[in-house]
Parts: sequence; structure tokens; C-alpha cells
Amino acid sequence: MRDALAGSDFETALRRKIDGKTKPLGALGRVESLAAQIARARQSLEPQLESCCLTIFAADHGVATAGVSAYPQEVTRQMVLNFLSGGAAANVFARSAGVSLRVVDAGVAGPPLGAEGLIERRIGAGTASFLSGPAMSPRQLDQALEAGRALGTQEAWDAVAFGEMGIGNTSSAALVAHKLTDLALDHLVGRGTGLDDAGVSRKHDILARAADRTARHLSPLNALEEYGGFEMAMMAGAMISAAEAGRVVIVDGFIATAAAMIALRETTALPDAFVFAHVSAESGHAPLLYDLGREAVLDLDMRLGEGTGALLAWPILKAAAAMLRDMASFDSAGVSGPA
Amino acid sequence: MRDALAGSDFETALRRKIDGKTKPLGALGRVESLAAQIARARQSLEPQLESCCLTIFAADHGVATAGVSAYPQEVTRQMVLNFLSGGAAANVFARSAGVSLRVVDAGVAGPPLGAEGLIERRIGAGTASFLSGPAMSPRQLDQALEAGRALGTQEAWDAVAFGEMGIGNTSSAALVAHKLTDLALDHLVGRGTGLDDAGVSRKHDILARAADRTARHLSPLNALEEYGGFEMAMMAGAMISAAEAGRVVIVDGFIATAAAMIALRETTALPDAFVFAHVSAESGHAPLLYDLGREAVLDLDMRLGEGTGALLAWPILKAAAAMLRDMASFDSAGVSGPA
Repeated sequence: MRDALAGSDFETALRRKIDGKTKPLGALGRVESLAAQIARARQSLEPQLESCCLTIFAADHGVATAGVSAYPQEVTRQMVLNFLSGGAAANVFARSAGVSLRVVDAGVAGPPLGAEGLIERRIGAGTASFLSGPAMSPRQLDQALEAGRALGTQEAWDAVAFGEMGIGNTSSAALVAHKLTDLALDHLVGRGTGLDDAGVSRKHDILARAADRTARHLSPLNALEEYGGFEMAMMAGAMISAAEAGRVVIVDGFIATAAAMIALRETTALPDAFVFAHVSAESGHAPLLYDLGREAVLDLDMRLGEGTGALLAWPILKAAAAMLRDMASFDSAGVSGPA
Repeated sequence: MRDALAGSDFETALRRKIDGKTKPLGALGRVESLAAQIARARQSLEPQLESCCLTIFAADHGVATAGVSAYPQEVTRQMVLNFLSGGAAANVFARSAGVSLRVVDAGVAGPPLGAEGLIERRIGAGTASFLSGPAMSPRQLDQALEAGRALGTQEAWDAVAFGEMGIGNTSSAALVAHKLTDLALDHLVGRGTGLDDAGVSRKHDILARAADRTARHLSPLNALEEYGGFEMAMMAGAMISAAEAGRVVIVDGFIATAAAMIALRETTALPDAFVFAHVSAESGHAPLLYDLGREAVLDLDMRLGEGTGALLAWPILKAAAAMLRDMASFDSAGVSGPA
């Protein structure tokens, strides 16, 4: 798939190809810039982007029992079963868009589910609470990253999307993001599954105390160890290997973006591999995207996670790549240019 | 497909159904409101929305030779052939999204094309120039509306999308919209296919003179007669019959929205049938949507027309309907509610 064009030659050829298509200059707007990004990620002027798989990583968080979520911890486990029986929003959207779906148990609380179709990569029965110490050990972090790396390149998908499930994980993601950026915790702590104002205020206080345990800034891997979740670490590992393998990585919402922030710092693979699908209504997401200098494809006021934003953006990415491959040029179609 | 629920009972059942799905309350944001709109349009709590057809109406405008466009008039004809050979952006997007595509000659300049696959409904070889008199006769308007009505209900599509092609048609749509609303011409005249500042200024002056020919406000049909295009009139007719038949009508950009504005005033069919797909970068579109009190699903900075915005929004509408039909409830999946 790789064209024998390097650096500026590739960019020139890409620009010429897009501008030669039968449309006024720039008239496809964001679809043109997405097409260019996909071409760079796939290193091809005819980028194939037909198959996609969503992997949902599920795990529990020790902090969940401290009252940071509107829902009880058991919902993580129940939702894993819902994914496996095909009833969750992610399942419905995946079927509608023709995307494959895998569910990974990265560390759900309680005994192993032993459910058919579930990919078991349990690092533990949930993380430790980061209120009193690190969420995971260095060894657990390594295991999670490694399991993720292996999953990121399984099968020959053109694109891989990542979602998550884990009660308490907006708290975890807020702290990881806080330690990696200059963003204040206020901008990163949101309603999660639906806290009211008092709930958000309590969540903020709990997280501020947890943040005080460590230095203002941490390295990506230290931040994961101290505050991360198994699903986040595994997702970061999968994103890294997928990007290095030339896959397009479709990043979903707030938690996935925190994982992507880590992945982007831990790999020299093309940053263009990462497409940010949807800006979440979870209030911390927009600041995080801003910090990364990235713009999401969609803004549909959703805040569900599970990869739902990535699934809704996928048909647009597929169409953008098809535009680059299949759309006629002024020359080939015999259409006149500007008068 | 129609459920035996009327008015407020329907609304209550709909709200309960959406809120019972396995997700935090409101967590699917705009997808929830789209699902509700589709349910109302289809008058069903299990709305089928699987098949879609895009119809592109092409026609020429007498005003095109007055220097209101960056492209020569012959491009309309050339693009019709490009649609028929499958090379335009609309073709690529339609194939990518699994949408059928039809091309209608509503009145392209020059002799009939006689091209295979083209639906010939020519009202004339382009409209008369609205600079000196009405763009079309009352009889031509009737013919165009009638041809559109017939096309709007052909075959049993769940959803119908409409696009257009016609050099000069942003000028025509700007005047129609101006005569139907209180919006100033300044807010409705834009770059079209890519005019520079001087070009926009010239276009504005030409259109302002044309606007002065008639009263500040006109009825929808008078506005079409004086300033419309055959593609716009035919599209309005198709939208009316499709909405009356309980189809979801996916409205594309600036010109399609001007047609939808007419359709919405000329039918008592449910306004919920009309979904506005994409807010165009053509500067007049956002004010028009605002005037209608409608919000577009996508904002991808496109300004191509052809139905491209409708095609990219279609997978999201399909997913929204599938959510309502197929997603599990807290009860059915055994998932706990808020703590």
C-alpha cells in the first residue's frame, strides 16, 4: 500500500490530487483534511479504509466505591454482558455501520466472568483506589500495555476504534490528563454518568486530594500507574501498536483521548494515525482536545463512551478515503474549471 | 408501521422508551433527539430506517451568464454526465454509505442529454434570467412541482435525500430565501463555488437589483416563480410528497434548505419528517437554518451540494433509528440504574 513518495513530494502529490477532484477548491472542507490525514497515516495516495473493528476495554476502578459516580460498580460487569449479548448502544451502532466488535475484560471487579465471546486479559479485579496509593503496580502496567499491544495489531483491519466501560473511569482519566498537561482539575472533572452539581463538587474534592499525593506533572507511564485504569493502559498499548502498523486509530471520547494522549507520547508512529471522532459532552474532553491541538469530527452532545462516537464517525472517514481513491478529476471527467 | 398511539400517549411512550435504554439519562445527546424525530416522522416507536435514495436534481439558471458564479454554465451539464458515470463526490459517498442514487434533468441548458440512466423531466433549457422578469411561468412551476411530487414517492424507500446541481443556484436560493424571510440579502449571498470578495460584492449588487423587481415578501410559490430554479421547484415537490408519505426527508445544504422552506409551508405533513443534515460553509445557510429553528446534524465545513451532506448524515440517522428499535433496556439487560 505504501507509495514510493517521501515527505514533501508526497504532500505535493496529495494536495494536487485533492484539488484536481471534480468540486470547487476546498468545497469538501473537513472531509478533504480527513482524507489527507488518512493518506498520511496509510502512507498512500489511494488509502484503503474499508474494514474497521471496535475493541471495548472494560475494567473497574478502586475509586468507584468512594462516591465519584452516579452508578454502582456492578454496572461495569452488567454492561460487559450487555455488550456480549449485543444490546448496548455500541453493538447497535457497530451493526448499523458494519464494524466488528470485540469486548476485552481488562480487569472487571469480582471473579472472572467466563462468558462466551469475551476476550479475557484481566490484570486484576479492578485497580486499587488511587486515593491512598498507586492504582496499579509497575508490573501490572507492563502487563496491561503488553496485552494491549498484542490486541492492537490482531487481524488485518484498516482502522481500529477503541472504546471503554468502567464505572469511575472519568475520575481516573481526569487525573491522568491533569498530570500530563497544564489543565486545572476544574476543567477536567465532569458529570460522568450524570452527577448533579453537588456530586461533581464532591468528586472534585476527592480527586483534588488524590492529585495532591504526587507531583504536579508525571510522565505518561507514571500517571497511568498512579491514577490510570487497566482499560486505559491496555487501550494505550493497543493504540501504539495499531498506529505503528499503519492502521487508522479512531479515538472515541474523554477516556479514550486520555489514553491517546499517552500513546501519542509513547510512540514515534505518525500522529496522523490518530483521528478524534467526537467531542464528548463530558466537560473535560474539549479542553483535552484543545491541549492536543486536535479537532473532533463530530459534535453530537453524547457522553456515553463505549466507542459510540468512534462508530458514528467511521462512515465519514470511510467516505473521505473513498473520495481520495475513487472520485473523478476535472481531467478524467472532462469538467471545466473556473471561468 | 403505525402504532396505535396518538399525541401525548405517543410522546410519553417514546420518552419512556429512550430513557429506559442501557445508558445514563440523555447520554446519547443529539442521537436521542434524532431518534425521537424519526419516530414521530414514521409514527412508530420501532421506526424502520434502513433504505435511502438520494435524488440529484440538475438544472440551469438564466442568471448564470450574468457573472454570478466562478464556474461557466456548461459545468452543470458536465457534472450530470459525471454523476451518471459515478465519478462525483455524491456517487462516492452514496456507494460508501449504501445509498441509491438517481439523477434528474429538471432543465439543463442546451439540448436534452439523452444519456443512459438519466431521468428526464426537463421543464425547459434552464430558467429565464430573473434579472428582467420571472424565472419561470406559472405553468412551468406547476409542471416542476408535479414532476417532483411523483418522484418523491417512487419506490418504497424509508428515507429520501435530495441534492442539486446547477451553476447559479446559490443566487437563486438566496433570493427565494430573502423573499420568504426577514433575512437581509447580505446574510444570504455567499461565495457559491468560490467567488472572491470582489465577486461576492458584484453578485450581491446584481441580486439586490433583481430583488427590487418585486415586493419585499412573496408567497412560497411566487418566490419560486420569480427567482427559483427548476431543480429547486422539483425538489420542493418531491419533499412534500415524501413527507406526506411518512418518509424521512434528508435535507442537504443551502439550496435544498430553501426548497425545504417552501415544502414546509406548502404541506401539513409532519415538520418532523424533515431532517437537516449538514450546515454548509455557504454563508447563507446558517441564517436560514436559524430562521427555521432547526439544527443540522453535521458541520464539516463543506459547501458542495449534490446531497453530499445528506449522504454523510445518513449513517447517523440510520444508527439513531436502530438505537430506538434494537438497544436493550435496563430491564431487559438486567443492568442496574443510578445508585
